[in-house]
Amino acid sequence: MNIGIVGLGLIGGSLGLDLRSRGYKVLGVSRREQTCQSAIARGAVDQASVNPAILATADVVFICTPLTAILKTVEEVIPHLSLDTVLTDVGSVKLPIVEALAPMWDNFVGGHPMAGTSNSGIEAAVPNLFTLKPYVLTPISTTPTHAVQAVEEIVQHLGATLYHCRPHDHDRAVSLISHLPVMVSASLITTCMSDAPDVVKLAQQLASSGFRDTSRVGSGNPELGVMMAQYNKEELLRSLQHYRHNLEALINLIKQEDWTSLEQQLKLNQLARPQFLQDSGAIPEAP
Amino acid sequence: MNIGIVGLGLIGGSLGLDLRSRGYKVLGVSRREQTCQSAIARGAVDQASVNPAILATADVVFICTPLTAILKTVEEVIPHLSLDTVLTDVGSVKLPIVEALAPMWDNFVGGHPMAGTSNSGIEAAVPNLFTLKPYVLTPISTTPTHAVQAVEEIVQHLGATLYHCRPHDHDRAVSLISHLPVMVSASLITTCMSDAPDVVKLAQQLASSGFRDTSRVGSGNPELGVMMAQYNKEELLRSLQHYRHNLEALINLIKQEDWTSLEQQLKLNQLARPQFLQDSGAIPEAP
Repeated sequence: MNIGIVGLGLIGGSLGLDLRSRGYKVLGVSRREQTCQSAIARGAVDQASVNPAILATADVVFICTPLTAILKTVEEVIPHLSLDTVLTDVGSVKLPIVEALAPMWDNFVGGHPMAGTSNSGIEAAVPNLFTLKPYVLTPISTTPTHAVQAVEEIVQHLGATLYHCRPHDHDRAVSLISHLPVMVSASLITTCMSDAPDVVKLAQQLASSGFRDTSRVGSGNPELGVMMAQYNKEELLRSLQHYRHNLEALINLIKQEDWTSLEQQLKLNQLARPQFLQDSGAIPEAP
Repeated sequence: MNIGIVGLGLIGGSLGLDLRSRGYKVLGVSRREQTCQSAIARGAVDQASVNPAILATADVVFICTPLTAILKTVEEVIPHLSLDTVLTDVGSVKLPIVEALAPMWDNFVGGHPMAGTSNSGIEAAVPNLFTLKPYVLTPISTTPTHAVQAVEEIVQHLGATLYHCRPHDHDRAVSLISHLPVMVSASLITTCMSDAPDVVKLAQQLASSGFRDTSRVGSGNPELGVMMAQYNKEELLRSLQHYRHNLEALINLIKQEDWTSLEQQLKLNQLARPQFLQDSGAIPEAP
């Protein structure tokens, strides 16, 4: 089976490495000739080209360009595809992508592999990036079953954990566990950096693992943070409103010195968090 | 030199292990005979007793009981001390402790080793817990220089990184980088667990390292969370108000679709965060 990968960065390149090792023939497309050469040299693709005509023999094509480029990429690619080619994407927001692409290509299946590292580009591609990580597919009522099955089979070969849900449910869930943490964490950094200079200096000296972990995703790729907010604006704002409400409630408990209720809430949190980590691809914590 | 340790839990026990290995004689005090026996068996103390009279020959005494118990512990201990004994504590909030203890004991030096694990009790004690971690001393104008020097010398033998500041500055800085992250992280868990059941279920399945890291300190020991809020109430509320203001500003940028300003803020955060991690005892992140 021939697999096309358009966009040879961290995700596209890692996908190519794994699929080739599972016996698929991988055809890569990048805007830059240099990236095509690097992808070939790293073994992420069998062939690569800046010309999407290379995808004529592809059975399944993964669109691995950034969210903002997906629609334009698909417009450029589909004139070169056979009509029975299955198209899927790896965008981290699904409703706007599925709404735009489903009418353009019958055999389109929305997808989101929930894997990554803090690096980007073809040089960052690594084997087994998707192993035991969630991989969400978001077919809709009009998506042909055989198209979904074709993508499912590949996802299973990657060793990822497959989930299905509606595009809107995906966006709501990731707004909570992926996009909200970025904004919550970003506001923490903003607060710590904007206090009085002598307090900031001391805070810089004393900051340890609590600050490090809570601030990590707030200092990630700024373009990615903006893209999440742009594409998942409604769901992110909804999650942020709920968060603000819960923060307000917690501030009031402290103001009122209602230590019993505060402890009760912290105990509920302590019980709730493991439920979010058991099925996921989250690396276990050090003891 | 004889060192007394009152409270043989994670901090007291770990302190004992290191001080004995550096050649100090360690005298331990615990409320429970069983804990005294465990501390001796683990090599955390040379001798231990439920009776603070054992501290009569101590040159420096570390009070390692929880914040809420420090004042009472000191009241019980000081009748047994020689007048030139130096007293220090390990409480994570300094102003209320220093204000209470300085008038009670001339040779008192407030201290805060910024080290720990998620475990507690004498069985959790480990060697080198303080190595390369910040250890803050908060002497005030009335603290005798020789008392500060005595504690400094021990802290240096632990391999910790020594800092000095005023109790109030300490409390303000830790409210930002230690106590605020707990509340920010707790509110994230509350938000994720209290959405509609089907959304929560999907979020639980998809949650990965972003959620894991941002939610870690929010699911820590509830009693400890409450104690921080109780003892550092004013500074924590001040930090929470600043945080709420910054979160509000970020929500407004998203509402107004001001992507340029959002990206600018995220870029500033990205530049600021490493300044908080370079000098600290934070374990470097995996690449």
